[in-house]
Amino acid sequence: MRVRLVSTSHFAAAHRLHRDDWDEATNRRIFDKCNNPHGHGHTYGLAVTVEGEIDPETGYLMDFGHLKRAVDESVVRRLDRRHLNFDVDFLKGVNPTAENIAVAIWGQLADRVAPGRLVRVALQETERNSVVYEGGAP
Amino acid sequence: MRVRLVSTSHFAAAHRLHRDDWDEATNRRIFDKCNNPHGHGHTYGLAVTVEGEIDPETGYLMDFGHLKRAVDESVVRRLDRRHLNFDVDFLKGVNPTAENIAVAIWGQLADRVAPGRLVRVALQETERNSVVYEGGAP
Amino acid sequence: MRVRLVSTSHFAAAHRLHRDDWDEATNRRIFDKCNNPHGHGHTYGLAVTVEGEIDPETGYLMDFGHLKRAVDESVVRRLDRRHLNFDVDFLKGVNPTAENIAVAIWGQLADRVAPGRLVRVALQETERNSVVYEGGAP
Amino acid sequence: MRVRLVSTSHFAAAHRLHRDDWDEATNRRIFDKCNNPHGHGHTYGLAVTVEGEIDPETGYLMDFGHLKRAVDESVVRRLDRRHLNFDVDFLKGVNPTAENIAVAIWGQLADRVAPGRLVRVALQETERNSVVYEGGAP
Amino acid sequence: MRVRLVSTSHFAAAHRLHRDDWDEATNRRIFDKCNNPHGHGHTYGLAVTVEGEIDPETGYLMDFGHLKRAVDESVVRRLDRRHLNFDVDFLKGVNPTAENIAVAIWGQLADRVAPGRLVRVALQETERNSVVYEGGAP
Amino acid sequence: MRVRLVSTSHFAAAHRLHRDDWDEATNRRIFDKCNNPHGHGHTYGLAVTVEGEIDPETGYLMDFGHLKRAVDESVVRRLDRRHLNFDVDFLKGVNPTAENIAVAIWGQLADRVAPGRLVRVALQETERNSVVYEGGAP
Repeated sequence: MRVRLVSTSHFAAAHRLHRDDWDEATNRRIFDKCNNPHGHGHTYGLAVTVEGEIDPETGYLMDFGHLKRAVDESVVRRLDRRHLNFDVDFLKGVNPTAENIAVAIWGQLADRVAPGRLVRVALQETERNSVVYEGGAP
Repeated sequence: MRVRLVSTSHFAAAHRLHRDDWDEATNRRIFDKCNNPHGHGHTYGLAVTVEGEIDPETGYLMDFGHLKRAVDESVVRRLDRRHLNFDVDFLKGVNPTAENIAVAIWGQLADRVAPGRLVRVALQETERNSVVYEGGAP
Repeated sequence: MRVRLVSTSHFAAAHRLHRDDWDEATNRRIFDKCNNPHGHGHTYGLAVTVEGEIDPETGYLMDFGHLKRAVDESVVRRLDRRHLNFDVDFLKGVNPTAENIAVAIWGQLADRVAPGRLVRVALQETERNSVVYEGGAP
Repeated sequence: MRVRLVSTSHFAAAHRLHRDDWDEATNRRIFDKCNNPHGHGHTYGLAVTVEGEIDPETGYLMDFGHLKRAVDESVVRRLDRRHLNFDVDFLKGVNPTAENIAVAIWGQLADRVAPGRLVRVALQETERNSVVYEGGAP
Repeated sequence: MRVRLVSTSHFAAAHRLHRDDWDEATNRRIFDKCNNPHGHGHTYGLAVTVEGEIDPETGYLMDFGHLKRAVDESVVRRLDRRHLNFDVDFLKGVNPTAENIAVAIWGQLADRVAPGRLVRVALQETERNSVVYEGGAP
Repeated sequence: MRVRLVSTSHFAAAHRLHRDDWDEATNRRIFDKCNNPHGHGHTYGLAVTVEGEIDPETGYLMDFGHLKRAVDESVVRRLDRRHLNFDVDFLKGVNPTAENIAVAIWGQLADRVAPGRLVRVALQETERNSVVYEGGAP
């Protein structure tokens, strides 16, 4: 039987949307108030989904605690209470839009959730906005 | 990289489930308390999902603010504080079930969310009930 | 030991803010889009709080099921899928603002929640707005 | 027009993760604190999704009230305030992991939601963890 | 400046409402389905509120992390994945109604939250029901 | 009749807990990861409560839209997408703990909500933590 597990977490981080290779006016025009020089932040909500078969021995796809630890170690501890433009190795050189963060989180998790198979990273940035990445190339 | 953006909104509207070409008994039998003559209402929750590629220049599929404005202008402002049986041009002649409203909202939005591609309209009617329309023909 | 129980419910209703003894312009100026002629509606959230002592025999202030039934019978069934300007006896002649509805709900419940004592009616009208009435005179 | 309806419910149940054919040490190692001898419990959240065409006569895929009753009768009333290891016929002999419960709920509902077609059972066990079953074989 | 901090947690536990000194019929009549022999359970939500002055040095009433650890150690770890009728020392001999659990949690926390002063324990049992205890004698 | 209105909002901001007059070790010991040099951030939830009498003419304590605009203009627009240590005039020289932010928001709002009387500012920093300020001196 194939099922999906969803594990949700939160992390509090600052970011600033900005490209160093653009002038200030362009940065301001494209990223608007999200380009404010000192940055701003969010309490991001993260929902990670893995897919796989139920192990007939345990009745688990995988232990939720195991999945939670993988997400905490690979992602949450490295992002929580950080500035995403400066403090996170796997975001170096990345403009931290919600889209880019979701894709980067996928990269950190894809090899860490066996026997599950990573199928979805959903990142909620505000009470109105969220991004979903399912690993798809165009 | 292909991602999805989800933008959520709310609108407060009245409606009455009713067909003018049915007699009262049939209306009452099929639509039950939702056929009450003076109508009732909901604080509808709306979640609009668009899909597309991340623009490597901006790191955006599209600006969340742009998507929010499209939803506000095309849908929310035209439905909020309205009676769906009387006040909304794009619902004229439509029996305003949640299913029909979701399909009608799709029609208003499909051409307004470029460079995103509309892939999902989810409409929550009560704390228990919601409808999802993904543009599918049978 | 004195405790409080909170029982939450929902009802879907239409309303229109309007005073028959005012002219149209005044109604429109004061109540704005909430004065639209055909009305609009909300999925109202209702949280009723009662206070009292824990019965040492049962460990209950009162059975949650008993409180729920009191709220359902006195309030929810009479408001759900109704138009508050036309269909509800205990709102006859009342301009159905959230404030007035909360006070009117108090009137229906105050004698129905023994051995609890009604101490709070909280009515959520939209995702942003709610009213709290605690029975207080000025 | 093909749409999906989602009906959400809750039930409060106890369970213990345990296999009678394993020794205590193995049960404890695999199921950890979820193997505590007396069991523990959850307020499970259940979201049932059905898919189908909108009936052009009614504007409904199906009446939400009808779907709610099917879920209540087939699932919620049989699980609410029960111990899943002892009290539920359709879980007899099943180790009540969230995965296995979701699959078993599917079995109870698949024939009860016509004219809808069951496409998704989502079961939330805690504020962090949920399982999704879409009927898929490996 | 006097402020309040609210720290929220969850725990998953089983319970059965039952008095050993009552006969079965009385237990069943009073506690209804909550008296089912094998018990049932909930994902309880817990919101602990403390009051105190803001320390002008730190800008804290107290560190949220410190409050969270106090709640985790004194309450959550001792209740999570437990059967409240059997497994919890500070509930021995207590009929685990939501009211009684809230009062008992107060007893465990009152001396552990300095420099805050415990003023409120709110315990959510289901999506509809919660209890608030503020330490009050009748 | 005296009632309370609650208006909720959100703002996304960065902050760093830090005192310039302390050495780095002390800052790190007291504020821990919230002292990270580049700051972090939150999607703050804000619930503003005002109290007053229902105007018998309008049935309003005050128009929710009026209260919302007061909160938006005095608070939300000045905090949203900002770094609280650098960008906000009314937080100059304030160590932006949740406690201090809540008190400062009170100061901006107290004169702006007539005919309501400000009675409560609740600020949610994370999914687990919130602060309540009711204007009280010790």
